Amino acid sequence: MDLTPPSVREALTRLQRLPGVGPRSARTLVEHLLRVAPEEVADLAQTLAELRQRVRHCSRCAQLTEVDPCPVCSDPARDASIILVVEEPTATWVVEATGEYRGLYHVLLGHLSPLRGVGPEDLTIDRLLERAAGEEVSEVILATNPTVEGETTALYIARRLQPLGVTVSRPASGIPVGGELASVDRVTLAQALHSRRNV
Amino acid sequence: MDLTPPSVREALTRLQRLPGVGPRSARTLVEHLLRVAPEEVADLAQTLAELRQRVRHCSRCAQLTEVDPCPVCSDPARDASIILVVEEPTATWVVEATGEYRGLYHVLLGHLSPLRGVGPEDLTIDRLLERAAGEEVSEVILATNPTVEGETTALYIARRLQPLGVTVSRPASGIPVGGELASVDRVTLAQALHSRRNV
Repeated sequence: MDLTPPSVREALTRLQRLPGVGPRSARTLVEHLLRVAPEEVADLAQTLAELRQRVRHCSRCAQLTEVDPCPVCSDPARDASIILVVEEPTATWVVEATGEYRGLYHVLLGHLSPLRGVGPEDLTIDRLLERAAGEEVSEVILATNPTVEGETTALYIARRLQPLGVTVSRPASGIPVGGELASVDRVTLAQALHSRRNV
Repeated sequence: MDLTPPSVREALTRLQRLPGVGPRSARTLVEHLLRVAPEEVADLAQTLAELRQRVRHCSRCAQLTEVDPCPVCSDPARDASIILVVEEPTATWVVEATGEYRGLYHVLLGHLSPLRGVGPEDLTIDRLLERAAGEEVSEVILATNPTVEGETTALYIARRLQPLGVTVSRPASGIPVGGELASVDRVTLAQALHSRRNV
C-alpha cells in the first residue's frame, strides 16, 4: 500500500522540480511544512503566489521590479551616462550593495550559448543597443560573468557597440581583496599578473 | 538603493526559514520561480497551501493521512496483532515500501530528548500504551532510529510496555545488505559482530 497521502505526493513531486531539491530534501521540506504553524505554510504559499504576480522585468533595463520603470531607471539622481550590463537580475543587487555605482543598469537575462540555442535575439541586446545609442550614454560597462559564455557575450556586445562610439569597458579580473594569493585559481592569478599595475 | 523588490525580499526571507535553504539557494529558488511558467509557480503555491489543509495525523496511529482513520488502521486485512513503532511519519512509507510488513503502525512524532525538553507527554506514547493494551495486540516492534535518542526512547517504551505482557522487539542492526564490510562504521560493525549468527 502506498501510504503517502496524495497531497504529500503532489508536494514532493513539485518540490523536486526546484533546483537543488532531490527526493530526500523534498521529504525534509514536507516534514518541516507539516510541523510548523499552519499560518507559516499559508504565508509561504501566498508569498510564492504573489511573487510572480507582482514582480516583472523593467521595460527599460530588464531588472526585477514591482514598478515599471524600475526605481533606478526612474531616479533622476542616477548618472544616465553609464550603463552597467549584467547577465542576471540578481547581479544588480550585488553591484548596488557596493554603494560605489551611481549609473544605470541593463540586464541581459542570460548569456549567449550556441550549444543551448541561446542567440542574441533571446537576450535584451537590441534594447541595450537602443539605449546606448541615446545621446546621454558615454560608457557601457560589460559586467558579464568571467566565464567562457560571459566573455563571449561581452565580446559580441562590444563589437555591436563599436559603431556607436561609446566607451566600452569590463571590470578588472584579479585576486579578490582580502583573499590569499595561494588560494586563487591559476587562470585568475595569470590574469592578475597580466593586468599588474605600477605602484 | 536596495534593488530587491519587496515581494522578492519577502520570498527570500520565507524560503530561508526552510531546512537546508541558505541565502544563496534561496536566491537560486527565486530566480527559478521567476523564470518558469507562471502556472508552475501558482500550482506549487496551491499545493503547499492545500498540503496543510488536507493532511492530518491519523487519530489512532498518528501517521500522515487525508482520511481518518488512515488507510492502514481502517484496513481489516492488516494484521492487528503487531504494531510497528517509528519516530517520524515518513518512516512508515519506507517500511511499507519493503512489502514485507502486514501489521499496523504507530508514529511517535519524535523521540525523547531531555536536552530539548521533549518528554514522554510530548510524544504519542500514551496512545501507544492504550493500543498495546488492546486484546488483539501480541507484539510491538520498536523501530525507532538506531541513534542515542532513538535507543533511549525504545528503552523507555519497552519498560512501559512490560506490564502489558506483549512481546517487544527491535529490528536487527548490522551490515546493510549489499554493503561492503570496509565501508560500514565501527559502531554498526561492532553491533553486527555482536549479533552474529551461526550458519
